[in-house]
Order: sequence, then C-alpha cells, then structure tokens
Amino acid sequence: MSLFRPNVDAILGYVPGEQPQEPGWVKLNTNENPYPPSPKVIEALERVIHDRLNLYPDPLGSKFRQAVAKLFQLDPEWVLPANGSDENLTILMRSFINSSDLVVYPYPSYILYETLVDLQAGRHQRLHLQPDWSWDLRAAQAITAKAKMTILPNPNSPTGNRWSDADIVSLIPPDGLLVLDEAYGDFADQPHQGELLRGEQGSKIVVTRTLSKSYSLAGLRVGFALAHPDLIRGMRKMKDSYNCDKLSLAGATAAIEDQNWMKSNTAQIRATRRRMTAGLLELGFQVVPSQANFVWATHPSIPHRQIYEQLKAQKILVRFMVFPDYPNSPSNEITGLRITVGTDPEIDQLLHSLKGIV
Amino acid sequence: MSLFRPNVDAILGYVPGEQPQEPGWVKLNTNENPYPPSPKVIEALERVIHDRLNLYPDPLGSKFRQAVAKLFQLDPEWVLPANGSDENLTILMRSFINSSDLVVYPYPSYILYETLVDLQAGRHQRLHLQPDWSWDLRAAQAITAKAKMTILPNPNSPTGNRWSDADIVSLIPPDGLLVLDEAYGDFADQPHQGELLRGEQGSKIVVTRTLSKSYSLAGLRVGFALAHPDLIRGMRKMKDSYNCDKLSLAGATAAIEDQNWMKSNTAQIRATRRRMTAGLLELGFQVVPSQANFVWATHPSIPHRQIYEQLKAQKILVRFMVFPDYPNSPSNEITGLRITVGTDPEIDQLLHSLKGIV
Repeated sequence: MSLFRPNVDAILGYVPGEQPQEPGWVKLNTNENPYPPSPKVIEALERVIHDRLNLYPDPLGSKFRQAVAKLFQLDPEWVLPANGSDENLTILMRSFINSSDLVVYPYPSYILYETLVDLQAGRHQRLHLQPDWSWDLRAAQAITAKAKMTILPNPNSPTGNRWSDADIVSLIPPDGLLVLDEAYGDFADQPHQGELLRGEQGSKIVVTRTLSKSYSLAGLRVGFALAHPDLIRGMRKMKDSYNCDKLSLAGATAAIEDQNWMKSNTAQIRATRRRMTAGLLELGFQVVPSQANFVWATHPSIPHRQIYEQLKAQKILVRFMVFPDYPNSPSNEITGLRITVGTDPEIDQLLHSLKGIV
Repeated sequence: MSLFRPNVDAILGYVPGEQPQEPGWVKLNTNENPYPPSPKVIEALERVIHDRLNLYPDPLGSKFRQAVAKLFQLDPEWVLPANGSDENLTILMRSFINSSDLVVYPYPSYILYETLVDLQAGRHQRLHLQPDWSWDLRAAQAITAKAKMTILPNPNSPTGNRWSDADIVSLIPPDGLLVLDEAYGDFADQPHQGELLRGEQGSKIVVTRTLSKSYSLAGLRVGFALAHPDLIRGMRKMKDSYNCDKLSLAGATAAIEDQNWMKSNTAQIRATRRRMTAGLLELGFQVVPSQANFVWATHPSIPHRQIYEQLKAQKILVRFMVFPDYPNSPSNEITGLRITVGTDPEIDQLLHSLKGIV
C-alpha cells in the first residue's frame, strides 16, 4: 500500500521544458532571456562568494525587499521574496486553499497552476478562453463567483496576449483572491508597475513577479510577491525560514537596482519580437500578437509536432504544446508552438530552418 | 473574514534564531560552522557566476546527485536535492500527511517539526524524552504504532545526544515512515553513512542531510534526502521544478567532492567541543555529552535567560530555549542554553565572559 497522499499518487507531476545541459543548442523552449544579466549582478556575486557563506542569509531578505519596494513605490512590508515565482505560487496554495476550495484559471494557460492545485488537493476549474484568447466574461464570472482564488497570468502563456485591467478586476472572486502572475510583465509595450494593488480592490490581489525572465536570472531562482501586508504576513509563515540564499539575494538586489540594463534588454527583445512575428507570418504561420518574450505560432496545414521535431533535429528547441479538452475547437484540442524570442541571429537561424520545413 | 486557511491563522509561524546582519558578533546561536567552506567551492562559484545565469539550472541537479550517490555508495535515484533540509521536511509533510495523519517526534527537540505539521494541518504528538534524554521506549512505541510519520533528529537538538540504531529502528511506525534528520550527523565521533537505509527496514526510512553545517554552507541553502527510489520519485512531484539554483548546485557539488576539507573542519570542531564542554563543567554548568556542533548547557542556580542576556550585552549570541509543557520536570518546563561550537578563540571569549557572570 502506498504511503503517499492519494493526490500525490494520482498525479504525474509537472514536467518542465527540456533543459539540455550541454552547449550547442538554440534554446527557444523555456522563455529564458538570451542576454546575460547586468554586470552589476556579477560584481555583487563576486563580492558575496567571499563573504562568509558559512553563515545563514537574512531570513527576511531585507535589502532585496527594500530595492523592490523602492522600484514599485511601496513599503517593504508589501514584498515577499521567494525561490522563484514557483515558490510563491506554492506558498499561495498552501496559505489559502483547503480541499473544498475552488481555484480557477484561464485555459489554455500555464499548466503548472493545475498541478499545484492537484498537489494541494484543492478543487479546480478552467475558464475556457475564446478561440481569439479573449474572455467569455459572463461565463467566467459565473465561475469566479464561487472561487477562492483566480490565477491570471498577464501576459498569458502560451499566447503572450495581455488582458485589460477592467477584465482582470471583473474576475476577482467576491469571497477570494486574485493572483496576478506577471512573470512576463516587463516585456509588455507598457509594463505594469503594481497599479492594480493601489485601487480599492488592492487588498484582494497578489502580484507575483520573477527575475528569471526580464532580468536574465533563471539560473539564480528569485521571484517576489507584492500584496497588502496583511496577506504577506500570513504567507510568510508558510515559507521556509531561509528560502532565498545569500548569493541569490545579493544578485537579485543588484539586478533590481540596474533598471537600465533590464530595460535595454527588454527593448531589444521587443524589437526582435516584431521581426520574428513578421517573419513567421511571412512563412504562413498564424501568430498571436505578443506582449511577452515568446510568441504562439500555429500553422494551418503542417502538424506542429512535426515542425518541432524537425527543428530539434537541427538543434533548435521550441516548445510543442497540446491543450486537450478544449471545447471551443472543432478538434477538441489546441496544439501549437511556443517560441521564445532569442537573439536576432538565433531568430534568423530559426526562420531559415523553418523556411526549409514549411 | 480571513481568507487564510484556519491552520495558517492559528499558528505564529516558526521564529528562526537571531541573525544580526552587521559584523562584530560572536555568533553561537544558530549552529553555523565557524570555518569557511572549501576553496574548491569558491572556485566552482567563481566559474559558474560567469556561466549563463540567464538559463535555468538542471531541474534534477544531476551532477550533485551523482556526487552524493558516490559518497554514500547509492544509486543517484536515491537522492533528492533540496533548498536546504527545511525544504525536504516541507516536501515530506506535503507528500505524506493528510489532516487525519499523526506525526510524532521527540520532545524536547527541533521545534520546527511541530510548526511544519501545523502548517500542513496534520495531527501531532510529542514523544516525551526522559530527563536524561533517553527514550521511554514502551511509551514511545505505543504512540508510533498509530503514527504515519516519526521524525527523529540524530543527533538531537538542542541536546546533541545521539540514539542507538536499535532504538531508532524500534520507532519506525508499522504503517508509516521514519524521517531521520541527520543535519548534524557529520559531527558525531562515528558519523553514519546511510547504513540504516540498506537494511530490511530501509524502504521505510528517509534520511535528510544538509550542507549548512558540516560543509560550512548555511548561506547557500542546499540539503538532500536519501531514500528508496520509490519514495524519492513521489517526493520529487512535490518539489518546485527548479528548487535549487545553479550556484547552489555547483557549490554544493564541489563541497561534497572535497571530503578532506569537511573532515578536517569537523575534527577541529570535535576537539573544540571537548575543551568547551570541560570549560563549561568547570564553571558549574551541566552539559549533555554532545555529538553535534553545539552543546546544551544548564546552570543549577542562575536563570538561563539572565545568562543569555548578559552574554548578548557583550555581543555574544547563544540560544536561550524554553520547552514548556514537559511533564517529566517538576517545573513542567525545561530551559537552557544551546551554544554552538565556534572557533577556539570564540569559545575562549565565551568562557571568559561566563566566568564573569556565574
């Protein structure tokens, strides 16, 4: 007889994108930033690796919280550092979701949300997006009315589209919380700066952010949540005492303090995104206008798995995705390719390879 | 009305030991190693901070698992890396404990165990140790018979004593798991090397280890669990995909591969522990013979809080601890000082200050 909780046995677990550890790949599958982190991050890391690693880090991550608070013009009590956005999503589940509680999120979207609810043994329901990725607001609101938590990634993944503030606010559960996952927020043409937290509904919103994408620090594992201090205080009980290590905190603080570096890289990625979108359209793909560092591309005739495999044979990795049980499609599923916006030469190589495939 | 789960609202959360961030303290309160990590760790970190931090780490931590597996002569499938031992304890709770499940652990012991069960909303019961820190085995077994999980720190904290393998095996729940927390295992005169995992009972044991203590890497946050692959596979579903960052994995791998450095430091700490124990006894303290990098000292007449405060006024931090509701003491509680084994000069300073206090 298994000793595991039934919900643990029942699920397969989240399968992250392929992470080949050897060099030589054009890696456009897990939305990493193709540019290196700020030189100031490296300088901070250089210092801290010689600075008493035998001692525990600051359990509250105070300097990092101060840097984030300054950036968002909030008090540091609004900030909870975490070991990547993933940890904050886990902390949110464990803080708020009992087995009778309903968690809802758009579909198609980031598949980790469903796994996290399953691991917490909560209930979940998908909010089916329309084929153009917009909301069927009336249907969605009928569901969020009964929810404890709505999770909205904005921009959404895998599509990169962003929804309006009005749509978002209308999906806050009357007796629950909205988690606004802004992992890709900095890549939007007009990035948000926590505006929704300041309104009347602000005490019912938790914004999650990561340094993995726009700050080029996927290897360092740092994210943070922004929310009213009453929420942050409770969530903090759930975190491990020393959830962020000394190096990560020091590097992340330096990254937040070098906004110019991040803004220059995200501007470059926006420019490449425009070129890449135009190139894919030219090759006959349909492409969702993206506000993130990836695009969702579908081809009207060639199977997406085949394109993925042919690219992989040429050492170009993109993310082939299947979303089954999607009622708004005649085939009852959505498939497509989520392709990270790499450097210009990487995207040239991608487009060149695709030209030979389609 | 609070949106938090009732168990989150009900608890205070674990309060870690004081972590002053400014220098100038003799820090003997959170069992950090006073010696720096291996120079090979620093070399590995020097390399990896220039090595594509914009990319995600290996989600499985393969190189680290291989190094640990080699050390313990196990297959890598027996190893689960984590963001410190704390994360593995949290993963264990989330993997195995439903609200009806009973978790038991010795008392007095590491107070985090109780917090973790409360956060998971499981049931818990303390196994009261005898005043000499040995087991009342018959009473304890009557309780473990009904448990889903027994957690035993070996050596125990705050006392540093170690229990026999026979005692430990006799406390494995018949229908559950034993978690053997060997955070301080390397400081024992005869360290364990996963022997209990190889016996008949091995498939019901999870050993947790940390690099924070013996490897001088509290600042890096890396621990690992050792258990049968059937257990590790289930626990892995519960972890965040990228729970350990690139720097931590690289540094921890280098640390594991430099056994000489760790062994030389732990030998020095054992030598200082002997001197420190003798010095405390000479000053009139009672000291539990310790197999860890701290000692538990009690004084027959002077209040422990007073000693703690007078030391703190001299910038020496030790851990003053109170264990209430302890039925085997006339006062119904245990108090004492848990003092980390620092460097020889630090311990000289401690003993000198104590001489002025007692």
